[in-house]
Amino acid sequence: MHLHGFFRSSSAYRVRIVMAMKGLSYDQSFYVLRRGDQRQPDYLKLNPQGYVPTLRLDDGSILTQSLAMIDYLEETHPEPAILPKDPLDRARVRAFALAIACDIHPVQNLSVLNAVRKLGHGDAEVNDWARRVNQQGLDACEAMLAGTKGPFCFGDKPTLADICLVPQLFNARRFGCDLSGWTRLLEAEAECMKLPAFTDTAPERQPDAE
Amino acid sequence: MHLHGFFRSSSAYRVRIVMAMKGLSYDQSFYVLRRGDQRQPDYLKLNPQGYVPTLRLDDGSILTQSLAMIDYLEETHPEPAILPKDPLDRARVRAFALAIACDIHPVQNLSVLNAVRKLGHGDAEVNDWARRVNQQGLDACEAMLAGTKGPFCFGDKPTLADICLVPQLFNARRFGCDLSGWTRLLEAEAECMKLPAFTDTAPERQPDAE
Repeated sequence: MHLHGFFRSSSAYRVRIVMAMKGLSYDQSFYVLRRGDQRQPDYLKLNPQGYVPTLRLDDGSILTQSLAMIDYLEETHPEPAILPKDPLDRARVRAFALAIACDIHPVQNLSVLNAVRKLGHGDAEVNDWARRVNQQGLDACEAMLAGTKGPFCFGDKPTLADICLVPQLFNARRFGCDLSGWTRLLEAEAECMKLPAFTDTAPERQPDAE
Repeated sequence: MHLHGFFRSSSAYRVRIVMAMKGLSYDQSFYVLRRGDQRQPDYLKLNPQGYVPTLRLDDGSILTQSLAMIDYLEETHPEPAILPKDPLDRARVRAFALAIACDIHPVQNLSVLNAVRKLGHGDAEVNDWARRVNQQGLDACEAMLAGTKGPFCFGDKPTLADICLVPQLFNARRFGCDLSGWTRLLEAEAECMKLPAFTDTAPERQPDAE
């Protein structure tokens, strides 16, 4: 398989974690988002949205959207599972993951920050936008874990929830969030960071890291 | 089951469609988003993100995030299926749905438009933001359907893709998008609108419609 990505893309990081957890091998190509590599015509043929990541399967099939790729990998390589078996437990893990993947990440990605900039706002206001989205979003995620058992987000194994959380926390730190209220989130992150699937795939360990 | 929603919420509309397709009965309560009903303390206990919809199951369990609810309903009430059986086909349907649920809807919802307004922009600029997000996002969705068979987004049955598309097209019209390039999207919508599961659950048919 071949992953079109970027070291700092938190959605590409999610896919790298799942590949590593499931022991799947792949090669990568890298797109410098600030330079607009992902908007070049050849890439748009693969991914009409102009976002990373894109996954090419061994038969040439193309998948877009990190969570769709991850569901595909879970269905075709079920072990180790990243979703619980019980439908209600699955729904809770998915809801947490979607709270990040829908309501935090896309509202603070580069294209949205560029749109804020285009409205006439400078670095401080743009960073404040990104910080606020991460702060409010992850505050809600912390509340979603009230009453759940650790050390991971949902129990004693990493799930899709942790796979979305860890990359988002990289962004939260980059934008200067106040992490002090995030007891359960940081507990889950610390547990993940004992696992090579999370550390080997981290942004700063990628070949295109700046 | 009980659905906490709002007639115009496109994510609540997705859940209403799935409930109707699967023949499930539920009652509803309604939240006026512009009045901030979804930010009241009692509701935040159910849904720490402060968004609609929230689904209460018959045993009292609470689910948030429309796509997590829909996966739960698909897993517990599999007929009629809203996802294909083949993992690759499923991934394509999911990618289309996520292109809407992650990259369009949350970037034009009320809280983001309020954030643009707070930066000092008036009605015209706020509407332009929402229009642009829908236009660019749905242009990409049209491109994602190139080469697929109709009349629905992915073949001869409605899937999760159509269930996300139809509510989003309501928003696109409301914000004044140019629909002329959306041949396949409008074909799929027209086919959906022959089905009571899509028409009976439409925003203007809800008890709280203004």
